[in-house]
Amino acid sequence: MSNEIKNLLEKGVVEIFVKEDLEKKLQSGKPLKIKFGIDPTGSDLHLGHMVPIRKLAQFQKMGHEIQLLFGTFTAQIGDPTGKSEARQIKTREEVQKNAETYVNQVSKVLDTKKIKLYYNDEWLSGMSLKEVCELAASFTVQQMIQRDMFQERIKAGTPIHLHEFLYPLMQGYDSVIMKSDVEIGATEQTFNMLAGRTIQKHFGLPQQNVLSVPILVGLDGKMKMGKSLNNYIGVNESPKDMFGKTMSIPDELITTYFELATDLSMEDINQVKTALEGGENPRNLKMQLAKEIVSIYHSKEEAQKAQEEFINIFAKKEIPEDIEEILLPESAYKIVQLIALCGFSGSNGEIKRLVLQNAVKVNNEKISNPDDTVDISEEIILQVGKRSFYKVKKA
Amino acid sequence: MSNEIKNLLEKGVVEIFVKEDLEKKLQSGKPLKIKFGIDPTGSDLHLGHMVPIRKLAQFQKMGHEIQLLFGTFTAQIGDPTGKSEARQIKTREEVQKNAETYVNQVSKVLDTKKIKLYYNDEWLSGMSLKEVCELAASFTVQQMIQRDMFQERIKAGTPIHLHEFLYPLMQGYDSVIMKSDVEIGATEQTFNMLAGRTIQKHFGLPQQNVLSVPILVGLDGKMKMGKSLNNYIGVNESPKDMFGKTMSIPDELITTYFELATDLSMEDINQVKTALEGGENPRNLKMQLAKEIVSIYHSKEEAQKAQEEFINIFAKKEIPEDIEEILLPESAYKIVQLIALCGFSGSNGEIKRLVLQNAVKVNNEKISNPDDTVDISEEIILQVGKRSFYKVKKA
Repeated sequence: MSNEIKNLLEKGVVEIFVKEDLEKKLQSGKPLKIKFGIDPTGSDLHLGHMVPIRKLAQFQKMGHEIQLLFGTFTAQIGDPTGKSEARQIKTREEVQKNAETYVNQVSKVLDTKKIKLYYNDEWLSGMSLKEVCELAASFTVQQMIQRDMFQERIKAGTPIHLHEFLYPLMQGYDSVIMKSDVEIGATEQTFNMLAGRTIQKHFGLPQQNVLSVPILVGLDGKMKMGKSLNNYIGVNESPKDMFGKTMSIPDELITTYFELATDLSMEDINQVKTALEGGENPRNLKMQLAKEIVSIYHSKEEAQKAQEEFINIFAKKEIPEDIEEILLPESAYKIVQLIALCGFSGSNGEIKRLVLQNAVKVNNEKISNPDDTVDISEEIILQVGKRSFYKVKKA
Repeated sequence: MSNEIKNLLEKGVVEIFVKEDLEKKLQSGKPLKIKFGIDPTGSDLHLGHMVPIRKLAQFQKMGHEIQLLFGTFTAQIGDPTGKSEARQIKTREEVQKNAETYVNQVSKVLDTKKIKLYYNDEWLSGMSLKEVCELAASFTVQQMIQRDMFQERIKAGTPIHLHEFLYPLMQGYDSVIMKSDVEIGATEQTFNMLAGRTIQKHFGLPQQNVLSVPILVGLDGKMKMGKSLNNYIGVNESPKDMFGKTMSIPDELITTYFELATDLSMEDINQVKTALEGGENPRNLKMQLAKEIVSIYHSKEEAQKAQEEFINIFAKKEIPEDIEEILLPESAYKIVQLIALCGFSGSNGEIKRLVLQNAVKVNNEKISNPDDTVDISEEIILQVGKRSFYKVKKA
C-alpha cells in the first residue's frame, strides 16, 4: 500500500466497508466517484464540517471525482440523525440558498470547478408511492430498528415518526442514481451510507464502499463542535480568531486536531505524539497546530502574522490563553459600561476608579479616561486589575 | 336504543371504536358513509366474506350510504395481514377483473345500484414521496410495532418489509379521501381501520367509527373459512350443496352461524340457544339454519326444496350427514374405478362382486352393472355395503 493510499484510508478514518475492496479499487488506478451528502440546512461551516470535506480533498488530489450531493429533497423532510426529534421542514428557497453558500465555503479546500453537484429533489420529488413501496420492500423493519439511534429512542420512549424510516432509503437511492463508488460521511451517517449498499445491490449495481470519519470535538474538549455551543472555529473566521481559538483547546485534543484538522501525514502526527510524550511544552505544539490550520483557510503568511500577534498579546504579557469569549450586541461601548457588561463585580463608581488608576487595559494598552469608547467589532482582550481578563467581541 | 340499532351494533360485532359516538350518529338520523375495503385478489366469495357484507346490508337498509373500496392500488403492493410473508404483487388487469366479479357476487345481499364504488389507485398512484413522508410523519414506529401481527413476526424473527408499514397509512388515507363516517372490517383489519382515525384527524377531518366483525370458522369447526382448506360454503353454490354443507357443521357452531350467516335477530337467536339448551335435536336447528342460508342466496322456495331433497336422501335412509367430500378431476367414472378412487379398501374383483350383489348405491339408487358410468358433475352420495359412504364431486 502506498503512503498516499495509507494516509487516505487510515488518517482520520473510523471505519471502512469494505476496506480490502476499496483498497483494490484505489490500486486499479481507475477514477472513482466519491459521494458526500450535505443536508443544506445551515450555512456557516466550521472545522467539524471540514473533516469529511478534507478527506474528499485527499481523494480529489489523487484524481477521483467528487460528487457533492445536496439533500434538497431530504432536507425538506428532515433526517433525525443525532436529533431527539424530527426536524422542522425547510422551504425550498432556503435549502437552495444554503447549497450555494456551501459550495463557496468548501472552495477553500476543494477544487470546486472539478466537482459534480447533485440535488436529490431532481429524482426524489417525482418518485411515486409505488416506487417508494418497491424501495421500502428492499429493507426490513428489523434492519431499521437495529440502528443505534432508533434503539436509543425506542428505549427512551421518544417517538420515531414513520417518515424517519424512509430517510435512509432515500439517501441510499441517491447512490443508485449517482452510481457512487464510495460514500464518505461522519460516523453518525454510517447506517444511512450502508443503506446505499443495500439499495444499490437491490438495483443490480456494484455496491459503494463506505468510509466514515470521526465527529470533531469542539474547543471545550467535551461536546461535538457546533454553532449552538459556541465551541467552534468557523472556516470564515479571521486568522487572528482562528489562531486564538486553536490555542484555547485542551492539551489532550492536540493530536486529534492534528489528525482531523490539518494536512499533516500520519508520520508527522506520530512525531507530534512523541514530542508530547517526551515532555515538549503543549503550548508550542498548539502554536504549530494553529499555524497549520490558519494556513489551510488563509495562507502561510497570514498564519505567521497571526502567530506573531498572538505572541505579542498573550505570550509576552502573561495573559491566560483560555479566556472565555463574551459576545455583546453593539460594536462599541463606553469603557465603564463594557467592564460592567463583562460581569466584573463592582459598582460603576469602583470601575471608574480603576480606570482612573490605570488598572484597565484593552489589548494590553492602558485606558485611563472613563469616558473613552472601545471598539469591539474585532475581538479585544480587556484586563481589569491584575486578575480579571475578558475576551469581548460584537456578536 | 331501538331494536334495529341494537341488532346493528351488537349482532355479529366484536368491537366498536367508539360505540357511544356511533350510536349518537345513528340516532341523529343523518345518512352515514359506511366504508368497506376489499383487496380484490380472489374472486369466489364464501359465507366468511359475507359476514361484513351482510353488516353493510343492515346499514344500507337503514338508509346509509355504502362505500365499497377496491384496493386496486394496495392490492398491487400487498397487505401482510394474517400472512407470514408479503404477498405477490398482482397485475393491474387481474385486480380490476376481480373487482367486477366481486360486485356481481355481493349483489345477492346488497342493492349494488345504491352503492358507491371507489378504487384507491385513483388517488394513491399519483401520490408523491413528499406526500408519503407527510403521511408517514403522522404515525410513529412505536405505534406500528404495537400491532399484534408485527409483534408476532418480530418475535418469530420473520422479516417485516418496510413497505408493510406503509400499508395502514394508505388504508387510512383512503378514509380521508372518501370522508367515511364508519369503517367495517374483520378483526384482523382493526389496526388498519384505526389508522384511518389517526390519519383523518391529522387531516383535520372528523374521525370515522370502526366496527369489527368476527372471522367465520369453517365447516371443520376449527380453521377460518377459506378456499384453500375446502371448509367453505360459496355464495354461488347450488341450494343443494349449500344446504348439505350447512348440515355438516359441528353442533357447537349452530348459534355462531345463526349470528354470523343469517338475518335472524338477536332475540330469535336467543330462542335457538334456549332450544338447544332445552334438549332440542341439533339436527332440527341445523335444518332451520340451512334453510335460512339458502333463502338468502337463492330463495325461500329453493330452500324448501333443498330441505326436502336432503331429507329424502339422508334423513329417511339413515345416511350419515358428516361425510367428507371427495373431489375428483373427471366429471364421470366407471363405477368400479370410482369406488376404488374413493379409497374403498378392496380389490377391483371384490368391488365388482359388491356391485353385482346389489350392495352399491348412488344417491340411494342401486347400481348393479359393473360397467355403468356415474356422472359426478353434481355431487353424489356413494354407498358401498352397509357402512361405507362417500360424497363425491368433480373438482
